[in-house]
Amino acid sequence: MLKYQRIAMEIEKYIENHNLQQGDKLPVLETLMNQFNVSKSTITKSLDLLEKKGVVFQVRGSGIFVRRHKRKGYISLLSNQGFKKDLEEFHVTSKVIELDVRKPTQEAAYNLNMELDDDVYFVKRVQYINGQTLCLEESYYNKSIITYLNKEIVSGSIFHYIREGLGLKVGFSDLYLHVDKLSEEEAKFLGLQTGAPKLYIESIFHLTNGQPFDFSKITYNYEQSQFFVQVNNHFF
Amino acid sequence: MLKYQRIAMEIEKYIENHNLQQGDKLPVLETLMNQFNVSKSTITKSLDLLEKKGVVFQVRGSGIFVRRHKRKGYISLLSNQGFKKDLEEFHVTSKVIELDVRKPTQEAAYNLNMELDDDVYFVKRVQYINGQTLCLEESYYNKSIITYLNKEIVSGSIFHYIREGLGLKVGFSDLYLHVDKLSEEEAKFLGLQTGAPKLYIESIFHLTNGQPFDFSKITYNYEQSQFFVQVNNHFF
Repeated sequence: MLKYQRIAMEIEKYIENHNLQQGDKLPVLETLMNQFNVSKSTITKSLDLLEKKGVVFQVRGSGIFVRRHKRKGYISLLSNQGFKKDLEEFHVTSKVIELDVRKPTQEAAYNLNMELDDDVYFVKRVQYINGQTLCLEESYYNKSIITYLNKEIVSGSIFHYIREGLGLKVGFSDLYLHVDKLSEEEAKFLGLQTGAPKLYIESIFHLTNGQPFDFSKITYNYEQSQFFVQVNNHFF
Repeated sequence: MLKYQRIAMEIEKYIENHNLQQGDKLPVLETLMNQFNVSKSTITKSLDLLEKKGVVFQVRGSGIFVRRHKRKGYISLLSNQGFKKDLEEFHVTSKVIELDVRKPTQEAAYNLNMELDDDVYFVKRVQYINGQTLCLEESYYNKSIITYLNKEIVSGSIFHYIREGLGLKVGFSDLYLHVDKLSEEEAKFLGLQTGAPKLYIESIFHLTNGQPFDFSKITYNYEQSQFFVQVNNHFF
């Protein structure tokens, strides 16, 4: 973690500890610089990061203000996948159904920009939240990037392993979501009735260099899935 | 529209016209500066905006590359509300059910940071996409900010009016979404069966100065609702 990231986390903690609410003003730059004993450029980078994360908003000529407090019980839609920090308030576990090396489906090959005779790790698992089924997940990982997975790894946070174990840098992702009715197989895994509502999300994760490495199809238990999204600015 | 925004739109058009695909490299900065006849700082701001919009991604020391092409038929989740640009490929119309000035519900007052005896504009409408029901929308607008609405305005793009007509700057927003079953009333408005799946989104829109001005509750027709979300970077 870089210095400005660490300072950003400390400012976030400061906001929590002081129970600051949306609209509360943060101390001015100079005060923050002294408080955390860092340069202006570092504190500026920290605040920019916190703005991107939706923790603060900056009003030109007026100051830096606290944003959010998401509602309790909501999962961040944009950081739930492998981003356990946002799930800390929940107890999440996984049960692995399948894990093997295989050839990608046409769909997976297309989304991962691979050939049909390249290898992928295929992972199918059910995730549980506070003892209830949260989702059924089918993921394809490009094996030439995600070179090794085992049952222990995929029982935990795969993304934590990708970053810390493999040292890869996760960049941007694309999500496609729609609502539909559960198939018989999905209903069985989620412990719901066939035909019950589902939230279905396909996502493609890329490294910072633009390479797609993970194509996932996730079916959520609608009774457990409340999502939260922050939008930072509306363009044009 | 500022110069760097205009240039950003032109670069976006350039990408479309040349049918550039994900991973294709853009010309280097100097070439873009000459091509659009602008300074380095302008072109940098334009590219930063395009990165935020998910049109390009920048790889340090390597260049600027084209991102996306969202799948056809998907609506951008983060810019669909009042952001008609993303709906241009669709034909969207509205039917106004209710429009009046009233006192906010407790929930609306809380989310808009208002008193219970302040006034809101209440708008209830059904939106149609390509002739099918898209969603049922109930919105509360803080009347001290959104000072005037009428039936003609709310039959069109309310956000277009807010920006162009009232000259307000729309800043950030918070979205809360979950999946559930349609109530009898919702089903009637959407032309679906009671109990059919629904995507339900509550959103709170703020001005750039942080004031919340719009609290909306939207129930989507699951058969018409395919959403697309781009995530730019994953933090920490």
